[in-house]
Amino acid sequence: MTINKVVDVHTHMYPPSYISLLKSRKTVPRIHSDTSSGDRLIILSADDDESLDQNARGRPIGPEYSSLSHKLAFMDNHSIDISVISLANPWLDFLPDSEAAETAKRINDDMNEQCSLHPGRLFAFGTLPLSGSIDEVVAEIRRLKTLKYMRGVIMGTSGLGHGLDDLALEPVWAALQEQAQMVFIHPHYGLPNDVYGPRAGEYGHVLPLALGFPMETTIAVARMLVSGVWDRHQELNVLLAHSGGTLPFLAGRIESCILHDGRLKKDGKLAGRRTVWDVLKRNVFLDAVVYGEAGLKAAIEVSGADRLMFG
Amino acid sequence: MTINKVVDVHTHMYPPSYISLLKSRKTVPRIHSDTSSGDRLIILSADDDESLDQNARGRPIGPEYSSLSHKLAFMDNHSIDISVISLANPWLDFLPDSEAAETAKRINDDMNEQCSLHPGRLFAFGTLPLSGSIDEVVAEIRRLKTLKYMRGVIMGTSGLGHGLDDLALEPVWAALQEQAQMVFIHPHYGLPNDVYGPRAGEYGHVLPLALGFPMETTIAVARMLVSGVWDRHQELNVLLAHSGGTLPFLAGRIESCILHDGRLKKDGKLAGRRTVWDVLKRNVFLDAVVYGEAGLKAAIEVSGADRLMFG
Repeated sequence: MTINKVVDVHTHMYPPSYISLLKSRKTVPRIHSDTSSGDRLIILSADDDESLDQNARGRPIGPEYSSLSHKLAFMDNHSIDISVISLANPWLDFLPDSEAAETAKRINDDMNEQCSLHPGRLFAFGTLPLSGSIDEVVAEIRRLKTLKYMRGVIMGTSGLGHGLDDLALEPVWAALQEQAQMVFIHPHYGLPNDVYGPRAGEYGHVLPLALGFPMETTIAVARMLVSGVWDRHQELNVLLAHSGGTLPFLAGRIESCILHDGRLKKDGKLAGRRTVWDVLKRNVFLDAVVYGEAGLKAAIEVSGADRLMFG
Repeated sequence: MTINKVVDVHTHMYPPSYISLLKSRKTVPRIHSDTSSGDRLIILSADDDESLDQNARGRPIGPEYSSLSHKLAFMDNHSIDISVISLANPWLDFLPDSEAAETAKRINDDMNEQCSLHPGRLFAFGTLPLSGSIDEVVAEIRRLKTLKYMRGVIMGTSGLGHGLDDLALEPVWAALQEQAQMVFIHPHYGLPNDVYGPRAGEYGHVLPLALGFPMETTIAVARMLVSGVWDRHQELNVLLAHSGGTLPFLAGRIESCILHDGRLKKDGKLAGRRTVWDVLKRNVFLDAVVYGEAGLKAAIEVSGADRLMFG
């Protein structure tokens, strides 16, 4: 009999160094400590409205975000053997270029240190200094490989600022592939608010959270697919948040639209390309954060049960 | 043994009156006849660029768009017994209010007449004068019921201009429910171009077509769901293009985000509401235009095999 371990791959933590960073900031993302309801985490500009009551901005942030004892108790409570923790969005996307490399090192060392306090139960995805220079990003990818508990990196969809189909990312993908580091792609930016219409304010966070997040992920990965990232980096593995956003459902439509596009054909982009289906089966892992049977089954159908990960 | 008929529910036609209308126009949507490559259909503003060669704008439009003999030959060739034809996007969304009602009547009569030429093989979804007054829209819904071959209406996601969660649409939903008319909801407007990033131009139509269309539909229907359209009109039936866009995959996430939203809870919007799952099983029909097994199975899982329609 094989005993399988339950591994949670999608679980965010705020190590002490990141909490300090957010508390030191005057613009989002920030932690606002000067309220009567305790510390509040504000990650969206729209929530940092000075006209709002301080106690109504963002959300309360307590020890559950940063405390290892809370994390372990949660894991025990839900029979989770191992958690691969990652920094939450928006990671370090907002840092000035001059501070990116040093901050990433500090926070990655801190995450690794946290994991070392519960050996075998905690591993981590590192964070890259994407606002720094390409050399700094590549150097941090190599350095992460030397940190015992690191199992890859987490990143958003903006890349170096122009999305994940940016050719300037080529050395980053190459280094990640060379170091066999998994890339956990996670949304943060959503869609422009206009798409939700004039009544969106009545619906709280429903539309940006339910639709903006998964659509952002899908668009980002479709841009990687159509620009040929996986043709050039055939061993690059990604883990997609929220079961790929909507990718399992739209994979066939994306493949069909690529195959029948006059522009791509005329430009010779269709010859020798890998299909969306092939990339899904060989390069893509999906988490299980999809809240329904239909979605779970679609995720398994496109990537395989061995590539659907708990979390 | 039951002989099932093959019914195609998603098939667009341009009746003669609509072709004439498009040829008479100087702005999109329009048919441009003054080219050396024959008539060209231009429905997107971006494609009506005066700096482009006329033969490179839009797409050629030949008899396959309007000829009944072409349609019947296509049906015979693919063993389709019945087609429920509908006007293509953007329907009559662009009409000045003063012309809307009269034009809708003319085009709906024309569609009905076309169907009468092949009785039993062709039925149609009508088109509403949505840029006219609410009274005109409601009157046309009632009038459509008197046209022998009409089986419902097709509409885009803009409604009266503010989306399908617009409370001004209440009399329209009420009339459609009262007349037991199916509403075929189809995308046209997509997402703002910015979401596709700076390299989108290199990818032809892939991203707007593969992602913009289904995401537009999903957002529109999610807005109907969260605003309670189906709580107020519990017998209102819709047919969603492209298997619901991405709705089958995101249904669970939408339901979870509604259930856990602080704003909706505080405003008392959660009491007595129908769940997304319930609406999917009782009010939603899906076509099969999804280009993949995973998507088809997800569509069947959420709405049932008896609600998945060929087309």
